[in-house]
Amino acid sequence: MRLSSSELFKLASEFIAEDLGRGDITTQAVLTTAVTARGRFIAKQDLVLAGLEVADAVFGVLESPVEIEAFAADGERIRQGDVFARVKGPADVLLMGERTALNVLRHLSGIATLTRAYVDAVAGTQAKILDTRKTTPGLRMLEKYAVLMGGGHNHRFGLDDGVLIKDNHLALVGDVRTAIERARRRLGHLHKIEVEVKNLNELREALAASADLILLDNMTPEMVREAVQIARATAPHVLLEASGSITLDNVRQYAEAGVDYISVGAITHSAPAVDISLKITTI
Amino acid sequence: MRLSSSELFKLASEFIAEDLGRGDITTQAVLTTAVTARGRFIAKQDLVLAGLEVADAVFGVLESPVEIEAFAADGERIRQGDVFARVKGPADVLLMGERTALNVLRHLSGIATLTRAYVDAVAGTQAKILDTRKTTPGLRMLEKYAVLMGGGHNHRFGLDDGVLIKDNHLALVGDVRTAIERARRRLGHLHKIEVEVKNLNELREALAASADLILLDNMTPEMVREAVQIARATAPHVLLEASGSITLDNVRQYAEAGVDYISVGAITHSAPAVDISLKITTI
Amino acid sequence: MRLSSSELFKLASEFIAEDLGRGDITTQAVLTTAVTARGRFIAKQDLVLAGLEVADAVFGVLESPVEIEAFAADGERIRQGDVFARVKGPADVLLMGERTALNVLRHLSGIATLTRAYVDAVAGTQAKILDTRKTTPGLRMLEKYAVLMGGGHNHRFGLDDGVLIKDNHLALVGDVRTAIERARRRLGHLHKIEVEVKNLNELREALAASADLILLDNMTPEMVREAVQIARATAPHVLLEASGSITLDNVRQYAEAGVDYISVGAITHSAPAVDISLKITTI
Amino acid sequence: MRLSSSELFKLASEFIAEDLGRGDITTQAVLTTAVTARGRFIAKQDLVLAGLEVADAVFGVLESPVEIEAFAADGERIRQGDVFARVKGPADVLLMGERTALNVLRHLSGIATLTRAYVDAVAGTQAKILDTRKTTPGLRMLEKYAVLMGGGHNHRFGLDDGVLIKDNHLALVGDVRTAIERARRRLGHLHKIEVEVKNLNELREALAASADLILLDNMTPEMVREAVQIARATAPHVLLEASGSITLDNVRQYAEAGVDYISVGAITHSAPAVDISLKITTI
Amino acid sequence: MRLSSSELFKLASEFIAEDLGRGDITTQAVLTTAVTARGRFIAKQDLVLAGLEVADAVFGVLESPVEIEAFAADGERIRQGDVFARVKGPADVLLMGERTALNVLRHLSGIATLTRAYVDAVAGTQAKILDTRKTTPGLRMLEKYAVLMGGGHNHRFGLDDGVLIKDNHLALVGDVRTAIERARRRLGHLHKIEVEVKNLNELREALAASADLILLDNMTPEMVREAVQIARATAPHVLLEASGSITLDNVRQYAEAGVDYISVGAITHSAPAVDISLKITTI
Amino acid sequence: MRLSSSELFKLASEFIAEDLGRGDITTQAVLTTAVTARGRFIAKQDLVLAGLEVADAVFGVLESPVEIEAFAADGERIRQGDVFARVKGPADVLLMGERTALNVLRHLSGIATLTRAYVDAVAGTQAKILDTRKTTPGLRMLEKYAVLMGGGHNHRFGLDDGVLIKDNHLALVGDVRTAIERARRRLGHLHKIEVEVKNLNELREALAASADLILLDNMTPEMVREAVQIARATAPHVLLEASGSITLDNVRQYAEAGVDYISVGAITHSAPAVDISLKITTI
Repeated sequence: MRLSSSELFKLASEFIAEDLGRGDITTQAVLTTAVTARGRFIAKQDLVLAGLEVADAVFGVLESPVEIEAFAADGERIRQGDVFARVKGPADVLLMGERTALNVLRHLSGIATLTRAYVDAVAGTQAKILDTRKTTPGLRMLEKYAVLMGGGHNHRFGLDDGVLIKDNHLALVGDVRTAIERARRRLGHLHKIEVEVKNLNELREALAASADLILLDNMTPEMVREAVQIARATAPHVLLEASGSITLDNVRQYAEAGVDYISVGAITHSAPAVDISLKITTI
Repeated sequence: MRLSSSELFKLASEFIAEDLGRGDITTQAVLTTAVTARGRFIAKQDLVLAGLEVADAVFGVLESPVEIEAFAADGERIRQGDVFARVKGPADVLLMGERTALNVLRHLSGIATLTRAYVDAVAGTQAKILDTRKTTPGLRMLEKYAVLMGGGHNHRFGLDDGVLIKDNHLALVGDVRTAIERARRRLGHLHKIEVEVKNLNELREALAASADLILLDNMTPEMVREAVQIARATAPHVLLEASGSITLDNVRQYAEAGVDYISVGAITHSAPAVDISLKITTI
Repeated sequence: MRLSSSELFKLASEFIAEDLGRGDITTQAVLTTAVTARGRFIAKQDLVLAGLEVADAVFGVLESPVEIEAFAADGERIRQGDVFARVKGPADVLLMGERTALNVLRHLSGIATLTRAYVDAVAGTQAKILDTRKTTPGLRMLEKYAVLMGGGHNHRFGLDDGVLIKDNHLALVGDVRTAIERARRRLGHLHKIEVEVKNLNELREALAASADLILLDNMTPEMVREAVQIARATAPHVLLEASGSITLDNVRQYAEAGVDYISVGAITHSAPAVDISLKITTI
Repeated sequence: MRLSSSELFKLASEFIAEDLGRGDITTQAVLTTAVTARGRFIAKQDLVLAGLEVADAVFGVLESPVEIEAFAADGERIRQGDVFARVKGPADVLLMGERTALNVLRHLSGIATLTRAYVDAVAGTQAKILDTRKTTPGLRMLEKYAVLMGGGHNHRFGLDDGVLIKDNHLALVGDVRTAIERARRRLGHLHKIEVEVKNLNELREALAASADLILLDNMTPEMVREAVQIARATAPHVLLEASGSITLDNVRQYAEAGVDYISVGAITHSAPAVDISLKITTI
Repeated sequence: MRLSSSELFKLASEFIAEDLGRGDITTQAVLTTAVTARGRFIAKQDLVLAGLEVADAVFGVLESPVEIEAFAADGERIRQGDVFARVKGPADVLLMGERTALNVLRHLSGIATLTRAYVDAVAGTQAKILDTRKTTPGLRMLEKYAVLMGGGHNHRFGLDDGVLIKDNHLALVGDVRTAIERARRRLGHLHKIEVEVKNLNELREALAASADLILLDNMTPEMVREAVQIARATAPHVLLEASGSITLDNVRQYAEAGVDYISVGAITHSAPAVDISLKITTI
Repeated sequence: MRLSSSELFKLASEFIAEDLGRGDITTQAVLTTAVTARGRFIAKQDLVLAGLEVADAVFGVLESPVEIEAFAADGERIRQGDVFARVKGPADVLLMGERTALNVLRHLSGIATLTRAYVDAVAGTQAKILDTRKTTPGLRMLEKYAVLMGGGHNHRFGLDDGVLIKDNHLALVGDVRTAIERARRRLGHLHKIEVEVKNLNELREALAASADLILLDNMTPEMVREAVQIARATAPHVLLEASGSITLDNVRQYAEAGVDYISVGAITHSAPAVDISLKITTI
């Protein structure tokens, strides 16, 4: 994924507009003369960084010559107390952009940091950590970018760029085989078919219908291990994904059960913000 | 706060567009005939509900006759296992809106639920729980609405609708008194002046300069208690707000220290999503 | 594919705005009283119909109660001289929407009509006619819809929803094998890999690297036949697509050479508009 | 006509967004390092060029330093095999913009090429070739620009910038005289009045009512010749336009019949795309 | 001119958004229960009404069932003290829309009222009162509509829908004749050519070059009278327009000097708002 | 207040689009070669300048290298005949932007000039001149900026950034005390409460309920004087504002009656445009 500069500018403009409204009345009142200032971004806890480009765009929207000078790159681990970037520009511009830039960095780095914890937890296995579509409305591109920065991989970006037949589809269609057959007949020729199964019977049905990928939903690590054995024996090329009820505590068990992918909704929908501050001083 | 229907429609359209892209290729492939279906929203944990109108708008954007029938209102406590709303409409529309509606409800109810925990923790004291501007970029109006649903109160909505002189302003201006005097001279006549102080000296300076509200930043409950005594003795009408390092564990100590307001960033920036599912069936 | 009503409304609004500008000064000048009129859409040649919903939206944008009453559906063959739809409403609204509605219907039906000619030309073979990304800028969704109405199938909708390694990629990467291997390593797990080859050596390389689909570019029917034999012998499940220099005259030869898909750019980039008129009369 | 740079940027952004969606997944997968490349635009057939500025804007939207170096200008005749422009920039940017830039150039040059054929066919007569409002929805400004590049002239741009009383107006108003009189009474003082007539009786009526311009619709060259004689005898300053059923084969007969203008819908609605390719190589 | 409902809705939405921002905090604070109210629009001075539809749209944007019941139509004279319309709906909606609706009605009725004074001042002469392009930025369509409501006529709507060669053009081109000849050669065939002249020499030059309309700029009534005589003697069909330094006091002199049109910038750029109030009561 | 460059660009783009439509057909016709020209902005009357930055943005939207060179700043008094700025660029760009730039400058300087007259009229008293929300729809930010340039002060910018309980609120709530009490209970803690009173009884009620500010509406200077005495005796810190029926003739009487603020709707809703011209010449 690559964040295009026009898309970044559009997002940053919306974020700034939301906070700025008709203008920063406090800053306009207390600053009487134009003064150049410097701001230092400080990590108040250990974290994995994500969002520097967005923060940069936030200041750029306010005034073009303001740019962030970074001492670390997105994806890097930052230690508590480290100054990882600084920004220089008109004091009122720094004050106007401060909160928005911090909100972006804290949120995205929060996701990268939590993702990294999951990725580290499965280190040494063949399993890759995937995100889901359980993202904050309006922020999917940014959040999926943060997942990459944390060492994770991206599942599909929306309903249009991948096929995943889920429990509610199956409830309406009736059975796994019919759903897969219909999909194969009607989909574009570039799409693989993934299907979600909740037990071993559905797994066998999916294998019989030649699903390309199978999502093992809400199974215990033991069930997943058994599912992997069945699938590998029947169709060694089918990719297997585990999902549901997976936590930092049990994620390694799932990885060791042999799946190719583990998708974790919490890395986007429940990652707490990390603590970052911006300290502004005159030059 | 009142969510206007045109604003709701605009947000819901953006949220749907983000997930839908060029269309739901899975649903188009597996559903062969138009069929009416029903979806039931089920709480998978105890929670305080927020976001029903937004979820409603999400389906409304897709097809106008689809509407949510609610068995509970925003702000109500829902028990694990309860079906709190249901929706009826074309099956493909329910499937297209499912994830977006859930993402909204889970995120906003997460904020309402965490806010309610803080509000309950200070029950019986005079302190009110406030949110901050530490919200997810692009979602401030919705998140501040969720705070209200959890029993909290809203601090300012942006840099333009309230005056709060913070540490970075003071670093540039030099001292509390100068900042307050400038603000009083240059602000519109409808604005009160709030100033952030980090110790008792600054507090006394703020009181001497006749600040209307004083934010006690990052103080221990004991320091807050002393600050309250000093302020009440000097200027009984000045409102006092505590902020910084406040958790569910210590929030009551701050409330009992006598402040009027306690602002908590975590209720918007770090509230985990609550677990809600949508179960779709044929009628 | 399903044209959402909000997307239709947006497109129709832009189309009308382009033609209407600040208003229809002729109609405003010559019509003195409000009068209800009726318009009949007449095919001036044999054609396959596409775009009724868009034409309907064009009038709907101008005035909501105006709607098209259709005597035929998109995808149907219409005979020269047939009245396939009529519209009733204020005379000035019919006059304002006339040209835009006709421009839409003539363009999309032109695509459907040409597509149908290709589809008919390969009738009885296993080959499916595909469109390409060689569409008129701004109209891809509508044009791909018209292809479906003509009995064709859709290739990918954009650069983001399918993988196709083309000659320019290969020129930069160096060879087919490297390109396929990189793609397999870095793509999301839901994507198949299609690669374009221009001779039998590249075909063999692509088969060796386990491409999921292979596009045979600019080959003669004889070369295609040989390619099909090689591919079927090596990897019977690999799908084969022919493209380049394919006309109505030779398309059947390509189909009979045994490919699964034949993609034809001309059905979108060079389909002449069909002749349709709107005859407006008082009621 | 002059294409403003902001309008160009807006159009190019929409065109790119349509093709790019959430990103070019193929290029992101197969290109591993940032590399500068060069692309050469090659005419695969004789053509009249149009659209270089739009193609330039397409790459400019993706990354600002990318610009086209042109060896020919819009409006020039290009020979098959000629390299008429080249572009240099990051390889991924060239690959992302390739299809959109080509779609623009092929479509607009197609229009310019067909227009030039009509203009050449009437060379030496006084007749000018005009376009119509039968343009592709959303592309009118660009297509009318391409007509100019092919040596044609522009009829009105929309319903608001010129008066043309057509058959459907006459059907509602009743007769030519009434329509012209109403228009004269109610139009702004800067507008001329053109009226469409389908036989010599209507022509005489239009001349009697002092129309400023008369469009001779769907007449044979012989009828047109007679109409010209009648009009020149009665009102020598009235401008005459022929339209309807005009092809490359018969356009000169219409020109030689003595009209001032010949309008041809086909130059915009049915011009086939010309064949242009972009060949990308490393530097 | 006809205000389209979608254009009205767009304008009304922007106007409301400008005043409402994040919400009407006063009304939300003081109204505790939902209550239906009625508002009466009262003329506080004699005026000519304009803008009822826009005011209607303003309330419609806020809540769809709210509509204005009008006792008078745009263009009618209203007496001081008259209630010319009333509106019924939720009290908070009336309060939110009050100021915006009044701002629209007062501004547009101000223009209609001043226009009517000019029109009345030339009653009985052949002269028509025209507006100019000296309108308030962003409001041209509405202001030109108000001019019509006051009995005036509209000059061109923008630089694209009429040709007027002005002093600055002449300063760059050199002389009147060259400018007219160039325009005739290069303009579309539907356009008349108007030229601005500031003395009788330029007038004669414009007549010699066969201008269609001539604007007599900044002349005294006496000069205008002489110009009219010259023009009528030379080219009786040429239309004449007077402009510049025209006031309510001297406009009749210009009319009696014999021109066809008198354009007055002040009716749009300097019309004072008329006094209208909205009185809201419970039902 | 500070006009952000992106907001300026957006406004300027809309203003230019309104006037330019599909292009300046006059200039395109009469100018045959690209030529650089210079324009001088000349005050045709004494005025206070406002809007230079917006005029600058208007030309910037058309072509980026065009910029205004200013010899005076917004807020300065300009004498009749003075050239206060000049602009240099392509002649066609100057001609395209001329009317829009002038419309902006004439309108905003008109407001600044009238505001300055009111400010001068109360010179030497403690009273400050305030604007109101009676602004031209769509132009509030610019008009409030012009008020500042004329030496005035800004009242609230919209319904969301200040509390003012007005007559229509009181009609619905019943009495002043209830309204103030509700507001105090439900408003955010950063807001002051202003209430409008129309007689001395309501004034006393407002003082008793501890309003922060009181607007004395439509009172004579004598009533205002009495109101001031009552208020100062009761609550010396309460700020007092006079409004309604205030003209240049009587504004000083209101100021001398002792109020802190005088709000005048006419400075925005009825300021006549001042006369400014742009004279363009070749270099």
